[in-house]
Amino acid sequence: MKLYDMSLSGNCYKIRLMLSLLKKEYETVPINLAKGDHQNPSFLKLNPRGQIPVLEDGDVIVWDSTAILVYLARRYGGDSWLPLEAQDMAAVMQWLTVSQNEILYGLARARAILIFKRPWDLQPCQEMGVSILKVIEQHLESRNWLALDHPTIADIACYPYVALAPEGGVAIDGYPAIKKWMANIKSLPGYVGMVGIG
Amino acid sequence: MKLYDMSLSGNCYKIRLMLSLLKKEYETVPINLAKGDHQNPSFLKLNPRGQIPVLEDGDVIVWDSTAILVYLARRYGGDSWLPLEAQDMAAVMQWLTVSQNEILYGLARARAILIFKRPWDLQPCQEMGVSILKVIEQHLESRNWLALDHPTIADIACYPYVALAPEGGVAIDGYPAIKKWMANIKSLPGYVGMVGIG
Repeated sequence: MKLYDMSLSGNCYKIRLMLSLLKKEYETVPINLAKGDHQNPSFLKLNPRGQIPVLEDGDVIVWDSTAILVYLARRYGGDSWLPLEAQDMAAVMQWLTVSQNEILYGLARARAILIFKRPWDLQPCQEMGVSILKVIEQHLESRNWLALDHPTIADIACYPYVALAPEGGVAIDGYPAIKKWMANIKSLPGYVGMVGIG
Repeated sequence: MKLYDMSLSGNCYKIRLMLSLLKKEYETVPINLAKGDHQNPSFLKLNPRGQIPVLEDGDVIVWDSTAILVYLARRYGGDSWLPLEAQDMAAVMQWLTVSQNEILYGLARARAILIFKRPWDLQPCQEMGVSILKVIEQHLESRNWLALDHPTIADIACYPYVALAPEGGVAIDGYPAIKKWMANIKSLPGYVGMVGIG
């Protein structure tokens, strides 16, 4: 398996973490966004959106971190990481949505503004991030995992940019349930971190 | 089944369209965003994010349009609208992601600025929308449906805000493959439109 990857990308880290939890071997192909690797014609053939991560697994090419998580869960994860029953799958999907909406356009964008000097407005991103942290905190007060009573790809999808929120100027010290949930994820067999996440 | 709904919401329309395609009966509960219905404590109990649509199906409550599509497809749609095989499911998920990213934060936001006077910057939203229309156009040049060789929830998720793009000041006349795909959707048995979509 081959992962088109950037070490500082939280979206790529989701896939590295999932592959490690599933104990799958893979190689990485570093993509340098600053040098425009993602706009090269050869890369755009893999992913017309010009974004990382992209996964190659034999003949199968999957772009988008959420789609790659779905692929890995279905192909290598049994029914645990993404259950097939309608209500359970919808519960996972709800938090996959959150990972792509308030977390991505709030917390991850705030971090991208401060770390990668992206040209967006910081304050609305931080406010969107805080609004969803409050929702997640309340939700986790009575739960160990986001979607079900065991870890799913919902947790893996939401974790990186929540854990990296301080790099976007959003403090997470005041969210004890989120802290406990992050500790639960760190205790999973095969857990790996990334720069900025211990 | 009960759908918390707003007639002008493209996200709610996704669910009305899917329910109609599946020939499911349901009642609607109108939610008036202008009056703040979505911030009422009783509604926040259903959806802590304070957004529509929300679906109630017996004891099951699902918030988020994408999660509701997943729920309906798994519960009432057999394996056709959301196949279970890893590669196929990932292909659907890729376009569910697009529906929540460039389409929602580009095309749908541009429309919300012009129709609902939301306080965002129009131009970056329109540019993001155009960028993804180009990707979708190229993708559909050799295909009838977005993800697989038959309609899936990926098509239902992406369709409304693409069809409504002109209401956000983004023309879609120059995209013949998208026009053909929209006609394919309109020809599905049970198809219904909404205000702004014939």
